[in-house]
Amino acid sequence: MSKPYFKSKPEHPAPLRAVVSRTVRFEEVDPLGIVWHGRYPGYFEDGRVALGKRFGIGYMDFYNAGVVTPIKQIYVEYHRSLSFDASFSIEAILHWSEAARMNFEFILRDTQGLIATTGYTVQMMMDRENNFLLAQPPFYREFCQRWLAGEIA
Amino acid sequence: MSKPYFKSKPEHPAPLRAVVSRTVRFEEVDPLGIVWHGRYPGYFEDGRVALGKRFGIGYMDFYNAGVVTPIKQIYVEYHRSLSFDASFSIEAILHWSEAARMNFEFILRDTQGLIATTGYTVQMMMDRENNFLLAQPPFYREFCQRWLAGEIA
Amino acid sequence: MSKPYFKSKPEHPAPLRAVVSRTVRFEEVDPLGIVWHGRYPGYFEDGRVALGKRFGIGYMDFYNAGVVTPIKQIYVEYHRSLSFDASFSIEAILHWSEAARMNFEFILRDTQGLIATTGYTVQMMMDRENNFLLAQPPFYREFCQRWLAGEIA
Amino acid sequence: MSKPYFKSKPEHPAPLRAVVSRTVRFEEVDPLGIVWHGRYPGYFEDGRVALGKRFGIGYMDFYNAGVVTPIKQIYVEYHRSLSFDASFSIEAILHWSEAARMNFEFILRDTQGLIATTGYTVQMMMDRENNFLLAQPPFYREFCQRWLAGEIA
Repeated sequence: MSKPYFKSKPEHPAPLRAVVSRTVRFEEVDPLGIVWHGRYPGYFEDGRVALGKRFGIGYMDFYNAGVVTPIKQIYVEYHRSLSFDASFSIEAILHWSEAARMNFEFILRDTQGLIATTGYTVQMMMDRENNFLLAQPPFYREFCQRWLAGEIA
Repeated sequence: MSKPYFKSKPEHPAPLRAVVSRTVRFEEVDPLGIVWHGRYPGYFEDGRVALGKRFGIGYMDFYNAGVVTPIKQIYVEYHRSLSFDASFSIEAILHWSEAARMNFEFILRDTQGLIATTGYTVQMMMDRENNFLLAQPPFYREFCQRWLAGEIA
Repeated sequence: MSKPYFKSKPEHPAPLRAVVSRTVRFEEVDPLGIVWHGRYPGYFEDGRVALGKRFGIGYMDFYNAGVVTPIKQIYVEYHRSLSFDASFSIEAILHWSEAARMNFEFILRDTQGLIATTGYTVQMMMDRENNFLLAQPPFYREFCQRWLAGEIA
Repeated sequence: MSKPYFKSKPEHPAPLRAVVSRTVRFEEVDPLGIVWHGRYPGYFEDGRVALGKRFGIGYMDFYNAGVVTPIKQIYVEYHRSLSFDASFSIEAILHWSEAARMNFEFILRDTQGLIATTGYTVQMMMDRENNFLLAQPPFYREFCQRWLAGEIA
């Protein structure tokens, strides 16, 4: 991963992070004995949900504010495969953005700490009539102000 | 399949049937090279959807009448496994019932016509507040009257 | 659940049990906002894997002994639905059998301890050429002898 | 899609294409009533499998030549959502490469021909001991020669 998925500027606050542990389930493994590549969006989601829950900015927090945050882009890069019953960690990293969007990076690591998978998702904020928001909803803007002020950790 | 999944009486009309063809997708196959057993509820659903569409009694028809039909029981019996890219057929068979429920039987056959899988689902009709219906909704009762009268085929 | 899924006799040892905790993942939820019924075979598998791991009689233990244990029957009964992010427990219960098969019962409970789902799976033991075993493989027979002797808990 | 996913040069032969039609299955739809974003790798695979089958360069063709072709990168861009039972087409487009890799582009279109989703996958060719191939396996190199000669259509 030579170049970062998202550009950061000196004035941006450090990204927010959450890590979850996971074990490969039998149904996730393909005939080659490794996790089928199409399961990783679900692994990323496990990380995204964990971060949302940790910081109070999850799916339901947005939903209760009348906002949905569909995925507009996803990218996954496969470095090492994972096998049945393998333990691994999913790190979700939320990068700073002033727009009505969320830029998540993901790093999956095996039990030795080696990188198995990396990637990112981009979500856009929309109201329930499927209109793109021009600005962040109030609850999230306040969250970002506290994030910028170094009050979130 | 020595005994039938649902009892029928002489005065019941013949069951309704629909058949769809399908090919095993790569993501459905497990490390042993056969379709993972947990995919079959989805195959049964393919058959159920096809029958609903054919006769105008599908998910959306009920939904538009304010009724949902959640699965209350499912049973699957595995006779022959299916492999990647194998073609097979799914026959959905709706058995007669006067209650606010739907009793479906399923038969999956391989390209030689041999039975791969059988099973059934039982669905109960509920309103949108999750109350069980005591009687079939009007549109479906009318459908059943035509079925009983031999007007459905 | 008025009648038991598997008959037990007085001379049978008590079933073996394992419980895992789980949270509903977003991708498991259907348009009605509840877990899609076809996800439960995977939940059952989570319980079965946990029990196998706890007692050393899991998928890989059999595989290493040249034996596979495909599912031949599955039954699921839905009592209460589960929603996104709901926590629940999965109890897997292995019932005694002298045959080359495994009879598992499952009970899912919500955070209040109420039963959400019950069901069972039946697995048959086969060699790698897909022949049904007439008797349990040695490692598992020894395990069952210790189970019968009350040495497994 | 302002810029192409893969660069082409004037001396490259035209990409190969295959299109399959598909209907959204109930289990693919999320609580928001649209296809969950993580299902699209499976849709891409449907297109890739169709192209492989059409031209004799599919999963099993490589497998029988001792070669596996795991996905190393996947990218999906979501333009319009798809709902339950919606029909759509999946176009898989194989771009020319002289390396031991396969560069696939995908375009999903709704029934009106509007682009719903685009994306790509990159696969690397490996032997069964998981070593990257330095050159294309003979059967595929011959295929590419015929492709370059304009004999594939």
